[in-house]
Amino acid sequence: MIDTNTKIGWIGTGVMGAPMCGHILSAGYPVSVHSRSPGKAQALIARGAHWCASPADVARASDVVFTMVGFPDEIEAVYLGGQGVLEGAEAGMVLVDMSTTSPSLSRRIHEAAAIKALETVDAPVSGGDVGAKNAALTVMAGGNRDTVAALQPLFDVIARVVNYMGAAGNGQHAKMCNQLVVAGTMIGVCESLVYAARAGLDAVKLIEAIRPGAAGCWTLDNLAPRINRDDFEPGFMVEHFVKDLDIALREALNMGLKLPGLELALDLYRRLQQTGHSRSGTQALIHVLRSLPLE
Amino acid sequence: MIDTNTKIGWIGTGVMGAPMCGHILSAGYPVSVHSRSPGKAQALIARGAHWCASPADVARASDVVFTMVGFPDEIEAVYLGGQGVLEGAEAGMVLVDMSTTSPSLSRRIHEAAAIKALETVDAPVSGGDVGAKNAALTVMAGGNRDTVAALQPLFDVIARVVNYMGAAGNGQHAKMCNQLVVAGTMIGVCESLVYAARAGLDAVKLIEAIRPGAAGCWTLDNLAPRINRDDFEPGFMVEHFVKDLDIALREALNMGLKLPGLELALDLYRRLQQTGHSRSGTQALIHVLRSLPLE
Repeated sequence: MIDTNTKIGWIGTGVMGAPMCGHILSAGYPVSVHSRSPGKAQALIARGAHWCASPADVARASDVVFTMVGFPDEIEAVYLGGQGVLEGAEAGMVLVDMSTTSPSLSRRIHEAAAIKALETVDAPVSGGDVGAKNAALTVMAGGNRDTVAALQPLFDVIARVVNYMGAAGNGQHAKMCNQLVVAGTMIGVCESLVYAARAGLDAVKLIEAIRPGAAGCWTLDNLAPRINRDDFEPGFMVEHFVKDLDIALREALNMGLKLPGLELALDLYRRLQQTGHSRSGTQALIHVLRSLPLE
Repeated sequence: MIDTNTKIGWIGTGVMGAPMCGHILSAGYPVSVHSRSPGKAQALIARGAHWCASPADVARASDVVFTMVGFPDEIEAVYLGGQGVLEGAEAGMVLVDMSTTSPSLSRRIHEAAAIKALETVDAPVSGGDVGAKNAALTVMAGGNRDTVAALQPLFDVIARVVNYMGAAGNGQHAKMCNQLVVAGTMIGVCESLVYAARAGLDAVKLIEAIRPGAAGCWTLDNLAPRINRDDFEPGFMVEHFVKDLDIALREALNMGLKLPGLELALDLYRRLQQTGHSRSGTQALIHVLRSLPLE
């Protein structure tokens, strides 16, 4: 049973991890924290979190360990590397990876953990930095059903809803499905705005005209207006979207699936990265589509 | 000034045109009607519409002529062909094409009409057959601003909202922009559902999990559930979507634009047609994506 005596470990204190860990602290749990960039953990330490020098040390100090880390190779190192979580973890602990990573890696960590009688849950989120700040994230969870259910008091502190998607890796698969829809809507919205500009339409009027119908989507409501005022700040960063689309494409190929829309999206976003937009918001895709050569 | 003494002509009484013309009749206007398939006009004639043997005859009998016809070559014939609308029309009349057709054709009709001192408005709609039945269409109108404004009493009878998009052809351009977004969301949603099925996810749970966030779109809300219950009835037919995407691609090329998402959508939908799905709903796209060869 989880209560506020449950010792929480938190690894990864970036733009998502820091506010999420902050909510856990605010709810009264004792927290041990580690971050690749110790400076990013200072505010949490000032609020009472206990600093640990390694992921293994976090595990030694905790009953439940959360990770919110950037890229798959970092996640692999945090769990399976030297001084990693599995080195410090003891039987019965629960390890919750809230990063978006490859379903295959999630399953690999799950299997390595099972040998030590550890439970793992893959629990990637949607909702972005705003959702993290407002404790309004949507969780897509994979792993043992009872384990996911037992974590509910902790998820309640950081998320609005938890969707149980099945066995280990299925949380990540669901997140990939989310990103596939986002990729398609982003291409559609950006191509629409490029066409509109070239045809001489008023983009603001256009959005107003088409958003109530079959073209209606989150991207049109939230990102098209930013494009119209040349606002390319992230929201969600290009380099993270490329990471996700790359994972999705590898998984699709592993499953024998060809997904041409996904391939196109990844290709376009990689071109966007090559023009210095790695840390722009995903809506910067329109820059690439404005300037594609006709042949 | 338009009032219920204004003589209305209506050409095209298919799944969209028939209910739209019916609303005009119900509002008390005298209506002259013509259709390529006279049988489809019978119910309107029984309700008091006057049958005309040709588009020219409709024009001779009317102050305002509406057209709601399938494909660009039919629209061209209806307006510019022998016994076409322009042959029968007199100076001062207003011609309103509510079909989705090429912006270039709309402008060509506009210019040919201007020589005879006729006003034209291109006024394609979104909202589909349900919107037509419920008088809840969204109109995207191009043409003279005052002419569009003067038509408001008639649009009020068939549509929920009229969006003035600018000069002749801009209504059609706006509709193309609508279809570009729809194409992107459709690819994204169908690829997501194909991936989900292959990964063993519960598609109903997946939709529930991702629809409140950045993946949210009309297609996910309205067509994904139909796909889940193997319902491929139209809504909006593949052959009409192919027509629209083909128009959009030609216009984009004319404007010097390369739109790879649009190209992909058109290619996939043409493959779908080759497997006998011309008259399925657009959500049938998933059939193609389930079975693409890996290379």
